[in-house]
Amino acid sequence: MANPLTISIDAMGGDSGPEIVVPGSALALERKPHLRFHMFGEEERVVPVLEKHPRLKEVTQFHHCDVSISMDDKPSQALRRGRWKSSMWRAVEAVKHDEASVCVSAGNTGALMAMSKFCLRTLPGIERPAMAAIWPTLRGESIVLDVGANVGAGSDQLVEFALMGGAMARALFDLDRPLVGLLNIGVEEIKGQEIVREAGRILREVDLPRMHYHGFVEGDDLGAGTVDVVVTEGFAGNIALKTAEGTAKQISAYLRAAMNRTLLARIGYLFAYQAFDFLREKMDPRNANGAVLLGLNGVVIKSHGGTDEEGFAAAVEMGHDMAANGLLDKIGRDQKVFASRGDEAQATPAEGSSGVS
Amino acid sequence: MANPLTISIDAMGGDSGPEIVVPGSALALERKPHLRFHMFGEEERVVPVLEKHPRLKEVTQFHHCDVSISMDDKPSQALRRGRWKSSMWRAVEAVKHDEASVCVSAGNTGALMAMSKFCLRTLPGIERPAMAAIWPTLRGESIVLDVGANVGAGSDQLVEFALMGGAMARALFDLDRPLVGLLNIGVEEIKGQEIVREAGRILREVDLPRMHYHGFVEGDDLGAGTVDVVVTEGFAGNIALKTAEGTAKQISAYLRAAMNRTLLARIGYLFAYQAFDFLREKMDPRNANGAVLLGLNGVVIKSHGGTDEEGFAAAVEMGHDMAANGLLDKIGRDQKVFASRGDEAQATPAEGSSGVS
Repeated sequence: MANPLTISIDAMGGDSGPEIVVPGSALALERKPHLRFHMFGEEERVVPVLEKHPRLKEVTQFHHCDVSISMDDKPSQALRRGRWKSSMWRAVEAVKHDEASVCVSAGNTGALMAMSKFCLRTLPGIERPAMAAIWPTLRGESIVLDVGANVGAGSDQLVEFALMGGAMARALFDLDRPLVGLLNIGVEEIKGQEIVREAGRILREVDLPRMHYHGFVEGDDLGAGTVDVVVTEGFAGNIALKTAEGTAKQISAYLRAAMNRTLLARIGYLFAYQAFDFLREKMDPRNANGAVLLGLNGVVIKSHGGTDEEGFAAAVEMGHDMAANGLLDKIGRDQKVFASRGDEAQATPAEGSSGVS
Repeated sequence: MANPLTISIDAMGGDSGPEIVVPGSALALERKPHLRFHMFGEEERVVPVLEKHPRLKEVTQFHHCDVSISMDDKPSQALRRGRWKSSMWRAVEAVKHDEASVCVSAGNTGALMAMSKFCLRTLPGIERPAMAAIWPTLRGESIVLDVGANVGAGSDQLVEFALMGGAMARALFDLDRPLVGLLNIGVEEIKGQEIVREAGRILREVDLPRMHYHGFVEGDDLGAGTVDVVVTEGFAGNIALKTAEGTAKQISAYLRAAMNRTLLARIGYLFAYQAFDFLREKMDPRNANGAVLLGLNGVVIKSHGGTDEEGFAAAVEMGHDMAANGLLDKIGRDQKVFASRGDEAQATPAEGSSGVS
């Protein structure tokens, strides 16, 4: 990857557009000063904000786009209205044309997925891209995929997700052989969905050199951080992600209510203020902002639409780390190893059975 | 329902068996003094504990059973080993023979489900029973089903779950027309799984008099308590339930760590002690202990296997409330209304189209 590393930004994405995206990019630049940017959006909205961040402006090429994708455009509408010319499309296209190593957008998820697929196409051997999220756990962080790019997945897709998630864990967490689990109900091999069991059989049989297949995990293993990568189909994955977010909000509300109940509690809160800061930091969804669209000929990061500058900066930095650590090369290599191992696996039982029986 | 109300107890179920089940039942009796019990289990283990609770012993008929189902028996093994004679089977059978209004077991979930189906059979018009959990929310409590009795469900099953969940909400929360939502990813009608969309169309069309169909809800609506009843297929429902449990554990661990970090935090904790008690009470999983097996000719409650006396008592009391409020009659009535409305719905468009066009 190029050093300096260039990131293409859809400046119009997200609930607030350039007002969050531009300062967020400036924040990322403070922390990673070798970054360079392509920024796409409406001139009259983006440039005035960019003017306020001279250091960012210096390393940014701005490109005016007439069209912006709205947060509630359907993917098909977005493609019809915005192909070739919207800020989102052009930010993705910059990756296709090697003008940027990563694209970051806080825009409409469905539209970003559709445009990324259409523009970048999937990597050889990958049927469907997946969306991977970073999940804060008691042991640090895990990767969970798919969190909603696809509804439904066969066992082959789950195996693809496992490969891509494993490669991402190596790129992001600096692990040699990440632990990969399949999300299921019950951990025994006889339990749960047949496609999950079948994916488990394949992963166990192929036994890839760069990932360790752990077996099944359950919903409560997500927060515990039992494995580095949790693989699931997009419907269940999205529900798990949103359920965890909802539970965190719910407990925060209980905690706030508890700390406001009595004078003693309020005094206690003052004493423990720093401790609550620590808790807030731990529970801050901005730290884990940024889902990765995996399986494409390029790295695309989806930031939460409602995030703030800090959260957007985290998404940009995540994009930087993915590109700097060669995510695509890692996926490509794993995919080849898997394909060749597949052939070996097919050959072995035949030899074995003719030799033994 | 009979008053006094009789509950049949599988005294051998759960991680600790009679040591938890018997005192838990005694606790429930303190709060609901008109309860009566049938208790099934191994005499040498149950009777000594029962002796310590004279008030409970007085209102309990004990029945010795040689066989106990273990927590890791597979459902088929359990049926083979335990049909007709195990404490679990006989506790369920007491409901079938009208000797008890409700059965409560903390035993192996799969085995309890299999035995209950085999012994009690499903209600007319119900194809598959579901397991319904009580979910604590910011607005109180909701019912979520299915949380793992079935993997996979068609749109007709989801509609059945909606009917049964609605009846349960009326029995438990004293609501006239509970709000029912279908768990999906994205709330727009075009989003998510086709079977969920189809179930939504049916519920909207039939528009039952005793439930209000709200539309789709997402994972974060569970904790928010957006609806009274959340309907989902068992795989996603189980993952949501365990993910929420895991997230709650994770945040408790963060909170403990935060409160132990500095001397000031520990002092603050002392001041706010009562507030933390309030929080613990809110987050106490024992309050929501007890899932209901819905759709059978009888009420069966599954207590968490690892619960304590307090939790088991909550499960018994939940069973009491279900029976006392006529859960089965409510499901039966709703099912009939739905079936007749279904006919009306089939007839109406034909009349409409011949009349209008």
